[in-house]
Amino acid sequence: MSLPRIAVDAMGGDEGVRVMIEGAALARRRHDRFKFLLVGDEPRIKAALENHPNLRASSEILHTEGVISGEEKPSQALRRAKGTSMGRAIEAVKAGDAGAAVSAGNTGALMAISKLALRTMPGIDRPALAALLPTLEDHDLVMLDLGANAECDARNLVQFAIMGAAYARVATGREQPRVRLLNIGTEETKGTEDLRDAAAMLKASAADLSISFDGFTEADKLGSGDMDVVVTDGFSGNVALKAVEGTARFVADLLRRGFTSSLRSKIGFLISKPATELLKHHLDPNNHNGAVFLGLNGIVVKSHGGANAAGVANAVAVTARLLEENVTERISADLARLGGASLRKPRVQEESA
Amino acid sequence: MSLPRIAVDAMGGDEGVRVMIEGAALARRRHDRFKFLLVGDEPRIKAALENHPNLRASSEILHTEGVISGEEKPSQALRRAKGTSMGRAIEAVKAGDAGAAVSAGNTGALMAISKLALRTMPGIDRPALAALLPTLEDHDLVMLDLGANAECDARNLVQFAIMGAAYARVATGREQPRVRLLNIGTEETKGTEDLRDAAAMLKASAADLSISFDGFTEADKLGSGDMDVVVTDGFSGNVALKAVEGTARFVADLLRRGFTSSLRSKIGFLISKPATELLKHHLDPNNHNGAVFLGLNGIVVKSHGGANAAGVANAVAVTARLLEENVTERISADLARLGGASLRKPRVQEESA
Repeated sequence: MSLPRIAVDAMGGDEGVRVMIEGAALARRRHDRFKFLLVGDEPRIKAALENHPNLRASSEILHTEGVISGEEKPSQALRRAKGTSMGRAIEAVKAGDAGAAVSAGNTGALMAISKLALRTMPGIDRPALAALLPTLEDHDLVMLDLGANAECDARNLVQFAIMGAAYARVATGREQPRVRLLNIGTEETKGTEDLRDAAAMLKASAADLSISFDGFTEADKLGSGDMDVVVTDGFSGNVALKAVEGTARFVADLLRRGFTSSLRSKIGFLISKPATELLKHHLDPNNHNGAVFLGLNGIVVKSHGGANAAGVANAVAVTARLLEENVTERISADLARLGGASLRKPRVQEESA
Repeated sequence: MSLPRIAVDAMGGDEGVRVMIEGAALARRRHDRFKFLLVGDEPRIKAALENHPNLRASSEILHTEGVISGEEKPSQALRRAKGTSMGRAIEAVKAGDAGAAVSAGNTGALMAISKLALRTMPGIDRPALAALLPTLEDHDLVMLDLGANAECDARNLVQFAIMGAAYARVATGREQPRVRLLNIGTEETKGTEDLRDAAAMLKASAADLSISFDGFTEADKLGSGDMDVVVTDGFSGNVALKAVEGTARFVADLLRRGFTSSLRSKIGFLISKPATELLKHHLDPNNHNGAVFLGLNGIVVKSHGGANAAGVANAVAVTARLLEENVTERISADLARLGGASLRKPRVQEESA
């Protein structure tokens, strides 16, 4: 069976066309059944493809003139989306010309354009941005929302849990993912009313959803490997993700300073390079690049604006995996199975269906 | 001039009386003008004091039988506070027997007991929990709220900024602290309405408050050293702080695994020990122990439940500094100078005073 194509916005990101194309070429080696739709300035894409004959052979170019800039407001981006590489990449997903789109451009614009063009899935009120975080165990953690929705109610959080669980089944292979809500304590009385309501709903629906709902967790446990999905509102999720990234950079900076502070330290550093390489591998955001907007009628993946080719390749690989595993269809099926009923607060009398 | 005493809840914390007393003794060496009121089980405090004649000479013991446990709900703790070491330590501050209290006990209980006994300062609606975070520059960052208030409005955030600035003047010596609000982007349109309102109020009142208000910041910049105070609601603040702590532990774990993975790495580790010691020093939460409840009529400092003696000493030293520098009086003066007027939304017509 031939898989749907992946549309790549070749113009987004701080690093330009070459990095996007090189990243796509690297990903194609790992996922060689995929074809690509490369969207952007044709002469520059063609030039970048010269070093990548395999990618060239499995790609089509869709020429566009416009580019959404990093500073553009979502509302402004929406108005001129049609002529831009980002807008056309999303449009290709809507039209069925591609199964998914990847962009390293402006996140707010990508969210707005994707939402308007693809619409949210039936049963989902708002899409969420999800990514994989490294843990000390041999599996990653799915975390969402990472910033698509600054404020969320209990119903949103439950929907995020369903979407996150579908992603975790793909990412970890675990059929009954361990789901937790991010809170500022693990006791049932902690946090906001929406969090407590969401916990009650998830507890009541865990069996229907084929998840193991383990209550609340705190942000210092994200790397523990004790769970597969962490659900939170977009504000806290964004804060947590950036705090993790910032601390990792902070530590890397300190290590660099320490290791270059004396000849002795430098020698020690060279000898212990395998150890520090392990650290670098774990902390390098390129190795965990690729956040996906879940809950839309189609897959849209955001690559970090500053990612290198290896990072872009990871974002494209995430896209390929989500497509291969039919994540969107799985979420639909989970929602249909629930029939929406269990998404209501358990203490509220259900209306007759 | 003799300084007011510091009341130490000798019974709180996971590590017991000995660690609290040893910590107080360490802090006394650095702040030898202070006297202490040691609250808790007298025989055990006396036994712990045997190794610390200097502390013994400058302390009085207040015997109590009861101890607030870590699992106790705040409402429950409030009811039996009177007979406990935590309750009596706070009561001593209220009665003027001590200028400040330090406890390593249950945070929720400490907050509830402190609020009821000491009340919030005039002009402050809610107290906030503030702590110092390490940065890559040679000064710490004051961050608040770290979990006292899960939900905050714009007015709360502005009050936190005033309290945080007073703390930063003490901690960094900078007369015009650089204050920012934590958000999920730096553009003016980002985040919640309360954050945008708080930003407008702080912008309008920055000169009156002797602060430099630099707008929004994101959680990956906390260690940058670009600011002196970061203000946020207690939910996000708690999430950010715990994400930082968790990531630091995660990295330390990875390093340990890496360095013990081969003989070569072990040798490299030993040679480069100064570098990893630097890292350990920066990441050890004991070196940044001591979070203060600001906004009460009196100073209450929370020491981490798991802190060692050096950690407790840091918490006591924080308390001593806040007392020496009259932080509570400074906050009062700032609030009086503002007269409450600038705490209203600038777009709202002011009522006649």
